[in-house]
Amino acid sequence: MSKGWTGNFFEDFSLGQHLPCPTPRTLGSGEIATYIALTGDRTAAFSIDGTIHPLLLFHQVLGQTVRHASLNAVANLGYAELLFHPVQATAGDTIHTSNEVIGLKENSSGQSGIVWLKSIGRNQEGQALLSYVRWVMVRKRESAQTQWSTSPIIPALAGTISPDQVRPSADISTAIPASQIGWTFEDYQPGERIFHHDGHTVTPGDHMAFTRLFQNSARVHFDAMHTDGKPLVFGGYVMSIGYAQMLSGMENRRGLVAINSGTHAHPVHAGDTLYSMTEVLETDPLGDAPVGALRCRLRVLKNDNPAQDPQRTYGSPRDMPSVVLELDLWELMPKTQTSSTRSTR
Amino acid sequence: MSKGWTGNFFEDFSLGQHLPCPTPRTLGSGEIATYIALTGDRTAAFSIDGTIHPLLLFHQVLGQTVRHASLNAVANLGYAELLFHPVQATAGDTIHTSNEVIGLKENSSGQSGIVWLKSIGRNQEGQALLSYVRWVMVRKRESAQTQWSTSPIIPALAGTISPDQVRPSADISTAIPASQIGWTFEDYQPGERIFHHDGHTVTPGDHMAFTRLFQNSARVHFDAMHTDGKPLVFGGYVMSIGYAQMLSGMENRRGLVAINSGTHAHPVHAGDTLYSMTEVLETDPLGDAPVGALRCRLRVLKNDNPAQDPQRTYGSPRDMPSVVLELDLWELMPKTQTSSTRSTR
Amino acid sequence: MSKGWTGNFFEDFSLGQHLPCPTPRTLGSGEIATYIALTGDRTAAFSIDGTIHPLLLFHQVLGQTVRHASLNAVANLGYAELLFHPVQATAGDTIHTSNEVIGLKENSSGQSGIVWLKSIGRNQEGQALLSYVRWVMVRKRESAQTQWSTSPIIPALAGTISPDQVRPSADISTAIPASQIGWTFEDYQPGERIFHHDGHTVTPGDHMAFTRLFQNSARVHFDAMHTDGKPLVFGGYVMSIGYAQMLSGMENRRGLVAINSGTHAHPVHAGDTLYSMTEVLETDPLGDAPVGALRCRLRVLKNDNPAQDPQRTYGSPRDMPSVVLELDLWELMPKTQTSSTRSTR
Repeated sequence: MSKGWTGNFFEDFSLGQHLPCPTPRTLGSGEIATYIALTGDRTAAFSIDGTIHPLLLFHQVLGQTVRHASLNAVANLGYAELLFHPVQATAGDTIHTSNEVIGLKENSSGQSGIVWLKSIGRNQEGQALLSYVRWVMVRKRESAQTQWSTSPIIPALAGTISPDQVRPSADISTAIPASQIGWTFEDYQPGERIFHHDGHTVTPGDHMAFTRLFQNSARVHFDAMHTDGKPLVFGGYVMSIGYAQMLSGMENRRGLVAINSGTHAHPVHAGDTLYSMTEVLETDPLGDAPVGALRCRLRVLKNDNPAQDPQRTYGSPRDMPSVVLELDLWELMPKTQTSSTRSTR
Repeated sequence: MSKGWTGNFFEDFSLGQHLPCPTPRTLGSGEIATYIALTGDRTAAFSIDGTIHPLLLFHQVLGQTVRHASLNAVANLGYAELLFHPVQATAGDTIHTSNEVIGLKENSSGQSGIVWLKSIGRNQEGQALLSYVRWVMVRKRESAQTQWSTSPIIPALAGTISPDQVRPSADISTAIPASQIGWTFEDYQPGERIFHHDGHTVTPGDHMAFTRLFQNSARVHFDAMHTDGKPLVFGGYVMSIGYAQMLSGMENRRGLVAINSGTHAHPVHAGDTLYSMTEVLETDPLGDAPVGALRCRLRVLKNDNPAQDPQRTYGSPRDMPSVVLELDLWELMPKTQTSSTRSTR
Repeated sequence: MSKGWTGNFFEDFSLGQHLPCPTPRTLGSGEIATYIALTGDRTAAFSIDGTIHPLLLFHQVLGQTVRHASLNAVANLGYAELLFHPVQATAGDTIHTSNEVIGLKENSSGQSGIVWLKSIGRNQEGQALLSYVRWVMVRKRESAQTQWSTSPIIPALAGTISPDQVRPSADISTAIPASQIGWTFEDYQPGERIFHHDGHTVTPGDHMAFTRLFQNSARVHFDAMHTDGKPLVFGGYVMSIGYAQMLSGMENRRGLVAINSGTHAHPVHAGDTLYSMTEVLETDPLGDAPVGALRCRLRVLKNDNPAQDPQRTYGSPRDMPSVVLELDLWELMPKTQTSSTRSTR
């Protein structure tokens, strides 16, 4: 038996199993610059002073889980309860990730099962920076039925993170450059749509470099022979491109603090052009904080600019072939004045 | 009206208007390494100790002006009076850019106008690192004539920066490695041509990564659907490739200190191969300084190696389809001995 | 005569000639991140705390020799006696390279000759980090016979570096993460094969960015017009991809310490998919050290996954068209317990 690692199969997971990360990673100026070069993100808060972009942190943490959790994944089914903690990661921090298996369900096909993982990313001092649950469909090694076929454990997950859990870091900057386009928290209304206009064509190399930056080694992203000439673009790249585009119309944002849910609805390949739009779902002033929270649905589309049909009705993303990602997230936005009105669509 | 930013149109500019930058940026090891990886620049002075390459600084400053100044630009018409100040940018500096509108002229077509901007890039202590004027042709929002049609304001600009304004930083290194090819200031003569030999084929991803590195979001560089499958290569990338190639034959250079003028004469797309050549226009010993200044015309050509026709006559770059960039710049070169002879062609 | 540098020809080299590097280079977070983004290397020891990957150091040192040694190289023939010294390079170190010509032989064709170079890479304090011999076939400028035709000097080189010369750095970490796949030094046996499974398709831009990262300017890698549309992939990129893949099955490795020999057997171009496998040739406990040494033969293949034919007989790599690289190297691996048994196939 060759020692080359072929990944865990569904049978290799057990409830409560702990999977610490094999490769801790120090993030620094290099990762920040590469992230900007590959995504074009212009968020002011993550362009200065070594502040680590929340999605850079997320992809690194997720990348650390791939060897053990998702090398044999058929599909990345979803995220829930993704929360960035108030401790801000900065250049020089070394990220460690731990994983716990919190749910298991064998599929009726007998070919695969679903694994729910709770992951926590910590800095070198052990402080939690990020926690979330994701679930993936993983191939079985053999056909024999497991106990998770008849007695599945499906964790109860919050559909939406409550604004009470959203805690901006104590030293969050709310200064707005004089030239900045002027929207602040109070200007956003539940139900409004924002079209981000910028298109981003995915090149053959950029998505691979992005995926490798996070030491994510899932073969389907890199091996053209294994994928009939069409390596699959890592969903995290699509997420970061969409989030970078989202700045247009949300120029003063202070960074996402939570992801309520996410769906990678359709595959993306090199050559596709990505566009995006945002719907504001809910606003919350976070009490007297200098920033309020906007719950937004970010949609990323391929080869289809949503601004060209602004009144379009969107149903389930799985039914709309051009929708490649829907992400329900909480974003922070500076207030003009102290405000305490909460607004839900 | 969606909040997504569609850029300023000609009517949105006014004389004397100030446009500070929306996204300050810390430059560090990451930006330096990415710059080298994308251009291949080997200039010794910018390979060590966190010294920021002058063109890395320039592109970052220019990138900070794009959202407000040139998102609706039809063409980047020119640069003038571009001067690097004696304060050297180093890793860890945070760059802020301010812009002032110093000229406006509506075109006779009524479709667009020209905006002259004076930009200054400063470090976190407010010290000026770089200043220049550029002018861009910007689309109008509406057809109604503006006052700048009949009463244009066209700033008076120096055609060439005087060598008196060129000030090397006080601690400039003039040590030449023992193995270095031996040309020093005294070896260069007005009228001589230098062929740089190295060809650089532009790939689909590299020019985009370069442009995004500087948070330059002009859509025409990234969106294949919007550009009939041929995204336009950012002129700054062409400039950096040409300048990197220019090291061959100028191995001891200490870095450009001024750009007198620049013309992006023809478009570049992925797949084009760039070559370059330099003509020495003028030499100035800068008094007793340990370096002299060489005024050079750098030409970058596409799919046409100028070394293969060394005696070719060059006219206006707009009339020569293979010439993509002409840049008239001042370069610093160490002296062999103290020299005070000034030479002009 | 234009000053543009066209490289040294065989006649320009003389025995005992010293060629210090023209461009020293500071390595930092940017180079580390770019290396990871382009190779996907996940070795834990080189993912944290600014520790420079041995191959990042090697490529940088080699890149510094290109302008003087191999701009006119027809072929990179081999390496020998490549030894990483116990001083570990870390972020912020500035690398300087010296070269000495230790052998010369004109080929019978009269068109070219072989130059043997001994290169030493040092940090800013002059401490040796890496030394090796490489030999390249270099074009002659003229047809006239040189003395190295009838009186060649061919240096005596060790075929294999003795384990006695392999010295782990004093503070080498041998901690193994709890989740790590469990193989340690004692688990590896001479003669065993390890298949690494991950395929890596080379994109047009990534290999060029990698080569430029090290300021390697050999024209054949970058100029599509000069290479009939098929720029040659830098052999160092192939080496780094293979070494990154090699982690699968050797998850606890502490980094290569020596290269006994290397053969770039066939060319690689963009579009090729690289796979790799390792044969363990020899094991040595290095006395009481906490790590043992594994002598391995790493093979990198193009468009041919060796795992699909695990019992294949491998002859000379030059006779196997899919084998692009064979590298005979010493790798360090933590021990489970103190062990002193040496094992050779």
